[in-house]
Amino acid sequence: MNETPTMRLHGPLFATSAMRGVFCDRAQLQAMLDVEAALARAGARAGVIPAAAAAAIESKCSAPVYDVDSIAAEAASAGNLAIPLVKALTAQVAAADEAAARFVHWGATSQDVIDTGLVLQLRAALDLLDADAERLADSLAALADAHRATAMAGRTWMQQALPVTLGLKAAGWLDSLTRDRTRLRCLRKNLLVLQLGGATGTLAAFEGRGLSMAGELARDLGLALSDLPWHAQRDRLAECATTLGLLVGSLGKIARDLSLLSQTEIGEMNEPAEPGRGGSSTMPQKRNPVACAVALAAAIRVPPLVATMLAAMVQEQERGLGGWHAEWETLPQILLLTSGSLSQLSHALASPEVHLETIARNLGATRGLNLAGTVAAALTALFGRKAAHQIVAEACRKALDEERPLRDVLAGLPELRGHITSSELDAFFEPARHLGEANALIDRALASHREASIDSSLPNEARDER
Amino acid sequence: MNETPTMRLHGPLFATSAMRGVFCDRAQLQAMLDVEAALARAGARAGVIPAAAAAAIESKCSAPVYDVDSIAAEAASAGNLAIPLVKALTAQVAAADEAAARFVHWGATSQDVIDTGLVLQLRAALDLLDADAERLADSLAALADAHRATAMAGRTWMQQALPVTLGLKAAGWLDSLTRDRTRLRCLRKNLLVLQLGGATGTLAAFEGRGLSMAGELARDLGLALSDLPWHAQRDRLAECATTLGLLVGSLGKIARDLSLLSQTEIGEMNEPAEPGRGGSSTMPQKRNPVACAVALAAAIRVPPLVATMLAAMVQEQERGLGGWHAEWETLPQILLLTSGSLSQLSHALASPEVHLETIARNLGATRGLNLAGTVAAALTALFGRKAAHQIVAEACRKALDEERPLRDVLAGLPELRGHITSSELDAFFEPARHLGEANALIDRALASHREASIDSSLPNEARDER
Amino acid sequence: MNETPTMRLHGPLFATSAMRGVFCDRAQLQAMLDVEAALARAGARAGVIPAAAAAAIESKCSAPVYDVDSIAAEAASAGNLAIPLVKALTAQVAAADEAAARFVHWGATSQDVIDTGLVLQLRAALDLLDADAERLADSLAALADAHRATAMAGRTWMQQALPVTLGLKAAGWLDSLTRDRTRLRCLRKNLLVLQLGGATGTLAAFEGRGLSMAGELARDLGLALSDLPWHAQRDRLAECATTLGLLVGSLGKIARDLSLLSQTEIGEMNEPAEPGRGGSSTMPQKRNPVACAVALAAAIRVPPLVATMLAAMVQEQERGLGGWHAEWETLPQILLLTSGSLSQLSHALASPEVHLETIARNLGATRGLNLAGTVAAALTALFGRKAAHQIVAEACRKALDEERPLRDVLAGLPELRGHITSSELDAFFEPARHLGEANALIDRALASHREASIDSSLPNEARDER
Amino acid sequence: MNETPTMRLHGPLFATSAMRGVFCDRAQLQAMLDVEAALARAGARAGVIPAAAAAAIESKCSAPVYDVDSIAAEAASAGNLAIPLVKALTAQVAAADEAAARFVHWGATSQDVIDTGLVLQLRAALDLLDADAERLADSLAALADAHRATAMAGRTWMQQALPVTLGLKAAGWLDSLTRDRTRLRCLRKNLLVLQLGGATGTLAAFEGRGLSMAGELARDLGLALSDLPWHAQRDRLAECATTLGLLVGSLGKIARDLSLLSQTEIGEMNEPAEPGRGGSSTMPQKRNPVACAVALAAAIRVPPLVATMLAAMVQEQERGLGGWHAEWETLPQILLLTSGSLSQLSHALASPEVHLETIARNLGATRGLNLAGTVAAALTALFGRKAAHQIVAEACRKALDEERPLRDVLAGLPELRGHITSSELDAFFEPARHLGEANALIDRALASHREASIDSSLPNEARDER
Repeated sequence: MNETPTMRLHGPLFATSAMRGVFCDRAQLQAMLDVEAALARAGARAGVIPAAAAAAIESKCSAPVYDVDSIAAEAASAGNLAIPLVKALTAQVAAADEAAARFVHWGATSQDVIDTGLVLQLRAALDLLDADAERLADSLAALADAHRATAMAGRTWMQQALPVTLGLKAAGWLDSLTRDRTRLRCLRKNLLVLQLGGATGTLAAFEGRGLSMAGELARDLGLALSDLPWHAQRDRLAECATTLGLLVGSLGKIARDLSLLSQTEIGEMNEPAEPGRGGSSTMPQKRNPVACAVALAAAIRVPPLVATMLAAMVQEQERGLGGWHAEWETLPQILLLTSGSLSQLSHALASPEVHLETIARNLGATRGLNLAGTVAAALTALFGRKAAHQIVAEACRKALDEERPLRDVLAGLPELRGHITSSELDAFFEPARHLGEANALIDRALASHREASIDSSLPNEARDER
Repeated sequence: MNETPTMRLHGPLFATSAMRGVFCDRAQLQAMLDVEAALARAGARAGVIPAAAAAAIESKCSAPVYDVDSIAAEAASAGNLAIPLVKALTAQVAAADEAAARFVHWGATSQDVIDTGLVLQLRAALDLLDADAERLADSLAALADAHRATAMAGRTWMQQALPVTLGLKAAGWLDSLTRDRTRLRCLRKNLLVLQLGGATGTLAAFEGRGLSMAGELARDLGLALSDLPWHAQRDRLAECATTLGLLVGSLGKIARDLSLLSQTEIGEMNEPAEPGRGGSSTMPQKRNPVACAVALAAAIRVPPLVATMLAAMVQEQERGLGGWHAEWETLPQILLLTSGSLSQLSHALASPEVHLETIARNLGATRGLNLAGTVAAALTALFGRKAAHQIVAEACRKALDEERPLRDVLAGLPELRGHITSSELDAFFEPARHLGEANALIDRALASHREASIDSSLPNEARDER
Repeated sequence: MNETPTMRLHGPLFATSAMRGVFCDRAQLQAMLDVEAALARAGARAGVIPAAAAAAIESKCSAPVYDVDSIAAEAASAGNLAIPLVKALTAQVAAADEAAARFVHWGATSQDVIDTGLVLQLRAALDLLDADAERLADSLAALADAHRATAMAGRTWMQQALPVTLGLKAAGWLDSLTRDRTRLRCLRKNLLVLQLGGATGTLAAFEGRGLSMAGELARDLGLALSDLPWHAQRDRLAECATTLGLLVGSLGKIARDLSLLSQTEIGEMNEPAEPGRGGSSTMPQKRNPVACAVALAAAIRVPPLVATMLAAMVQEQERGLGGWHAEWETLPQILLLTSGSLSQLSHALASPEVHLETIARNLGATRGLNLAGTVAAALTALFGRKAAHQIVAEACRKALDEERPLRDVLAGLPELRGHITSSELDAFFEPARHLGEANALIDRALASHREASIDSSLPNEARDER
Repeated sequence: MNETPTMRLHGPLFATSAMRGVFCDRAQLQAMLDVEAALARAGARAGVIPAAAAAAIESKCSAPVYDVDSIAAEAASAGNLAIPLVKALTAQVAAADEAAARFVHWGATSQDVIDTGLVLQLRAALDLLDADAERLADSLAALADAHRATAMAGRTWMQQALPVTLGLKAAGWLDSLTRDRTRLRCLRKNLLVLQLGGATGTLAAFEGRGLSMAGELARDLGLALSDLPWHAQRDRLAECATTLGLLVGSLGKIARDLSLLSQTEIGEMNEPAEPGRGGSSTMPQKRNPVACAVALAAAIRVPPLVATMLAAMVQEQERGLGGWHAEWETLPQILLLTSGSLSQLSHALASPEVHLETIARNLGATRGLNLAGTVAAALTALFGRKAAHQIVAEACRKALDEERPLRDVLAGLPELRGHITSSELDAFFEPARHLGEANALIDRALASHREASIDSSLPNEARDER
C-alpha cells in the first residue's frame, strides 16, 4: 500500500480544503488528462491526428479511470508521472479503439503534459487565493476605517514609542496586502501559458504544424502562448513562488503583530473565540491564537521553499536533471501554505476581538514616557536639541524612579517655568494630538484598496486592458 | 582598527567595480547624508525649518567629512548607523552655525534616513544592472540570430536527444533574460519610493505639515510617494530581492549550460581566451570557465539570501527588532552578486568561442540514436505506437551493440522492407530536417527582445506611460 | 473528504516504501498512542494512576480505532493533533471504563505526546537510514577496491586535469559517507530522548513524582532522559535535520559526479539498465539517470528545509507559536527525501555499468594535454618554474592547433633536446605513473569504512561504550 | 580603488573585533602564506625541496609584503586568490633567491593552500567562540542558580500558563548552549584537518613522498590528517556551518525570550543600561534591546547561509565549479554573525536587569487563571476529567467577566462546597506550590554545564582522550 506521509493529518491545519482539492493526487492526474484531451482535440483541429481518434482519447481522460498508486509506483521507475499515465491512457484507448491509441500524446513530451497540467492547477489555485485575499483586504479596510480614532501605543523595537491608531496599523497591513494582490494579478501574464515543445522544445514532431498546434491547444485550454517552450527556463514557476513568498511575508507580519497584541499582558486584540478553537488540553480558559500560529509557521516555511524554486532554476540544457524534480512537490506546498495562512488570517480578522479599554490603559502605561520624544522636540525650539534632550531624559529618569507621570515631573522643573504653561503641558500628553497624518494615510490605503478591488472584479482580459 | 571581513579580497571576483562603488561604506554614508540634505531643503520649502538652517546643514552633508570607523563603532552601541551619523552631522553643523544644528534630522527617525538612503543606492544599482542586462541580451540575440542553422545535439536529463540549434538554445537564454529585464523595470514602481514617517510612521513631528514635507522630499530626491511609511512593511525590499533572485536563476541556467558545453569531452563552446584568465597553477594549457564559476556561485548563494529577505519581512509592530537588521547586509550582497554574475556572463558571451566542427561531430556521436524518437514517431503511423517503439528500441540496442549507425541497422530490418525507401531513411537521419519550428521560435524571442530594449531606452517616466 | 496533496503520487519516487510507512498518517497516530500507552503504564508504576486505569487506556491505544480525517479536521481548530486524539482516546476509554478515562494523558501536555511520538518515529527512521547507508557504503568500498588500477581522467572545474583512478573517486565518495554514518550514530545520543514536562516544563502535575515518572516512561520507551524538557529548545530536532543535510549533500555530490560521467559524450558510467527504468516516452533507447535525478533533487530541496528547522528554533518562552508548527511537516520531509536519495543511489551503485574502454579513450582524449602540469613540474627542475611553464604552455598551444599529441610536440622541441630522452617522454605520458598515492588513500578510506561498519554492527549501547 | 561593500560600516555591530580580525583580508592572506611557509618547511624535511629554498620562501611569507587590492584584482581573472598570491610570492622569492623561487608552492594546488589557510582561520575562530560561549554559559548558570525561587509566569503560545521560575528558564537556555559547546568541541575532529592533494587529489607531484609530505605538513601546522584530500568533499566545512547554525538558533531563542520579557508592558528583564547603548534618536528615555536585535538578526540570516553551505556540497568531480566559490564568503559570514550574536548576548546576560516586582505582578495578572489547569487537574480526581474541566472553564469565564480572582469565584461555587476547604483553595493559587521539579531540573542543567566546562578547560588532545 502506498502510505501517505503526514500531509493528510496536518493538511487541514495548514491549507484550505479547496486548495487541497486543487493539489490532491486525483486533481493532478485530472489536470494532466485534461491536457491530453485538449492535445487530442487540438491535434484534430490542426489536422495532425484524426478527429475520431481525438474523440476516443478524450473519452478516457477522466482521472477516476486510473489507479493513483500504480501510476505512482511506475513513476518511481520511469522518473516522471507522465510516462505511466500516458501508458495507461494508451491502454485504455486501445481497448476501445485500437486505431486511436497510437495518437495518444501525439507530438508531446512528458514535460509538456506535466507542466501544462500544473499551470491549469495553478490557475485554479490563484483564483482561490484572489478570493481569500480580497476577503482579508476587505476586513482590514473595515478595521482601518472603524478605528481611525482608536489611539494605541506605537511600538518600535518592541518598546512603546509615540502613539499610533489601530486604524493606521490596519492600514499598514492592508497596504502591503494590496500590493500583493496586484502582484498576484500581474503574475498571471507570465505564468498562465502553455507548455508545448516536444522532446527538445522544437515542436519537430508536428512536422511543420507545430505553431498552429500550439495555438489551438492554448486556445482550447484558455492559456496564453509563450515565445518559446520553457522546459528548462523555469522563471515563470519561480516567479509564482516569489510572488507568494511576498504575500506570505506580509501575512506573517500581520500574524506577528496580532500575536504580540494578544499576549496575556498586552491583551489589545484577540482572534475570535469559537468553541474548540485554540483550546489547551490543560488550561480550559486559555485561547491559543491558532491563526497566528499557522500564518507564522507559513512565514517560516515558505521563504526556504522559495529558495528551493530559485535554486532549481539551474536546469541543464533542453531539459534538466534534478532541478525539475525538485519543483514537483515544492510549488504545490507553497500554494497550500499560502492558502492556509491567508484563509486563517482572513477568518481571524473578519471579526477580531478588539479590547478598547485595554488599548487605552496600555497607552497610559508609561505615564507619559512614550511621549517624551514629542516633548523633547517641542523643547528643542526653546533650548536647542542637546539641552532639550537632556532635560527630557533627566525628567524621564525621575519619572521612572519615582513612578510619577512625566507630565508632573516636567511641571515641577524650574528650567521650564515660564516657558510652558500647565495647559500646554496637558496638550503634550494628549495622545490624540500626536497622531500626525494617520487619518490621511488611512485614506490613501483605502483608496488603493478600492482600486485593487475594482481591478480584481474585472474579467482577466479586461484587467489586462486597463 | 576596523578590519574588513573578506569582502575586499573576493569583491572583484563577485561584483563589478561600479556596483561595489554603489554599496561601499562611503557611498552608504553619502546616500544617508543626501537624504539629510534633502530633508533640510524640503523642510525649508515646507516652512518647517528656517532656510538658513537648511543651507548650513546641506553644507556638511558630505561623506568625506565623517570617519567611517568611528561611525561604525558607535553604531555598534546605538543599534543603527543613523544615530551616530546624525550626531556627528549635528556636531559639524553646530560648529559652523549653532542655531542651525537643532534642525538637523528634523522630524525624521533613523529608519527614514537609512531606508531612503538605501533606496537611492538601489536606484543607482538598478541602473547598472539594466545596462549590463541589455548588453548580455544583445549578445544573446546576436548569437541566436547567427546560429539559426547551427544544428547541435539537444540534451535532456544530460543525455543526447533530438537536435536543436545553437540559435534556439541562445533564444531560450535570451527569452528568460527579457522577462527578467521587464521585471526589473516593473520593480522600480514599488521600490523607488520615499521612506518618511517619523518615530512611529504618523509624521506627527511635522505638526500638520507631514504630507507636504513628504511631497517636497520625494520631489527633491526624485522618488515616488508611498501610500504609507513602510518601516515595518518590507515587501518592497523583499521584492527587489526576489526579482534579482529570478535574474540570478536565469543567469545560473546559462552558466550551467555553458559550463557543460565547455567540458573537455564536449567542447562545443568556451568562454573567450584572455591572458591570465582562468589559469591553473599547475596546468598551463587549461582554461577554467571563470564566468561560469561566478554565475553558478551566485545561483547557489542568492536564493538563500532571498529567503532571508522574505523571512525578515516578519517585523514587529511599528518598527521591528532583528528583521530590519537582517536586511542591512543581505540586500546589498544580493545586488553585488547579481552584478558579478551578470557582468561576467555578459563579458563571456560577448565573444564566446563556438566550435562548429565539434558541435557537428557531437551531433553524430550516437550514430543516429538521438533521432530514434523521430523514427519511432514516423513508424507509428505504419505499425502503431507499441510495435513501432519496439522495432526502434530493438534496432537501437543492435546499433549500440554493434557500434553501427542506426540508419544502417534499420535498413537491414525485414519488417521495414517495402515500407520505407533508402532515401526516406536518409531523410530521417538528416538533423536539419528535425529542427521543427526553431527558426520561428527564435524570431519570437528576438521580437520580445527588441520590444524590451525599446522600452528600456525610454526615460523612466515615458516607460510608465506606455 | 480529506484530499491528500500530491505526496502520494510523488511519494514512491522520492522516498522508500519503508520510510513512507514510518511517517504515514497512521504511523504518526500510532506513535502518539504508543506514548499515551506507555505514559499510562509508567503512571501506574510510579503510583500516579491506578494500574487498572493504565490497562484500560493501553487497550485503546491502537491507531486503527481512530479516524484520521476527523482527528485532522479537529486539529485544524485545536491547533495540534494531540488535543483531538486525546479527546477521542478518552471517549474510547470512557466507553469501556468510565473511571479510567480521567487518567488518560495524565500529567502530560500535548507537546509531550507529539514530540515523544516523533522521537519514536525518528528512531525507526534512523534505523532504516543506517541500513541503507551501510549498503551504499559497502558498494562504494567494493568499487574503490575493484578499480584501484582503473586510471581515468581527473576533472577540475569540469575540465580534464591530471588522471585519477575510478577507485580513488569511489573512495572519496565513500569517505564522506563514512563520516555521515558516524554523524548519524552520534546524533542518536541527543535525539532519542524523552519529552515530558507538562504544561510549562516543570512536571508540576505529577506532584512530586515527576522525575520518577519521567524515568519510568523513558525506560518503557527505550529512550534516554534529557536534563530538562525541551518544548522550546529545539536543537535536538534541528540537529537531526542538519545531520541529514550533510548526508544528502554527500549523496548529491555522488549523483552529480555520476550524472556527469553518464553524459552521452562521456559515457564512463551508467546507472544499471532495468526494464521500465529511466525510459523516455519519445526516445526508446534513451536511459535517463533516475537515481541521480532523485538524489540531485534531494540535494536541492533538503538544504532549505534544514534552514527551516534552524529558523524554527527561535521559539517563544515555554512553548512557542509558529516555530513548533513549522517543524511538523518539515522534519518528516527531510527524512523522506534522505531515504529516497540514499536508497536510489544505493540501488544504482550496487551494480553500476562501468565502461572501461570509454574511460580509457577519454583519458587519452586530450592527446596528453591533461598531463601538461606534470611535464611542467618536471621541467621546472631543469629550467625554473617560469621558463618551464612557458615551454609547456607553448607546446600545448601547438598540440591543440595541430591536433597532435603533446608528447610528439615536445619531442620536437629543440629546447628539450639533450635534456629529456624519448623514453622519459613516454613515461611522462603514461597515466599509471601519475596516480600518486591513490592506492594508499583508497586503503585509508576502506579502513575507516570497516571501522564504521564494525561500530554500526554493535548494539547501540555497546557502541556508546566504545 | 577597491571599495569595500558595507561590511565595514556594519561590521562592529554584527561581529566582534577579534573575529573580524580573524577573517579580515590581511588575515586571510597571512593564513595562506602560513600554509606556503609550512609547505616549504615540510618539503625540506621530507626531502622534496632544498632546505635553503624553504628558508628563502619562508622569509617572504608575511602578508604586509603583498598588496590586497592587486591580489584581489588578479584573482578576479584567475578565478581564485592562490594563483596571484603564489605568483606574487614567487616574484618576491625570486628577487631574493632566484633558485628558491621554483620551489614555491611545490606540489600543491591552489585549493590546497586556500582550504588549509581557511582551516587555520577556523581554528582561531572556534577558539574565540569557545571562550565567548563559556562566558555566556557561566552567566546563564549563575542566573539559573540565583533565581531558583523566582516564580514567574510561564508562557505558552505567547499566553500565560502555569508558573515557572526564572531559574528554570535560564537553565533551559543554558542546557541547549551546553549541547552547542559540546558540538563545537566535536566539530574540531572533522574540521581541523590538512588539505593537501595536488591538482586532482593524488599527491602525484610529490613523486612517492606525498604521504610523508602530508604528515610533515600536518604536524607543522598542528592539524590532523584526513583519509583523503577533500577538494570536492565539503562535508567538513558544511558541518562547521551546521554546528554554528544550531548555536545561532539556540541564541536566537534566548534573544526572542529576552526581547519578549523586555517589552514595555511586560518589563521583567532588560539588557543592562549603558550610556549610548540602544538609544533612540527621538525618545531619550527609550532603551532598545540591541543585543537581542543582533542575535535575532543572526538567527534570521544564518539558517539560509547554512543552506548555502549544504547546497554548495554538490561539487563536480575532483574539484568543482561554482560550489567551491559559493563557500568563500559564506562560511566567514557565518562565523562573524555567530560571534556577534554570542558576544552581544554574553554581554547582555552578564548583568541583565531583573525586575522582581514586575515579575511578581505579572504572575498575578490573570487573577489566578494561569493556575486553572492545576485546579482542573485537582478537581478531576473528584469529578472526572470532563466535569472538572467544565466547572473550571465556567469559573474562568465568570472570573474574566467580573474581573474577580478565580479563587474567589471557585470559593463561591456550590458544587465545590464540602469538597474543598478554603485553605486548600489558597494552596491551589500559591505559585510556589506549582513549580514541580524546577529545582531538580536546574541542578541537572548546572551539572551538565560544569562537565562541559571541565572538558573545555582541558587541552584539545586531553579532551579527545576523554
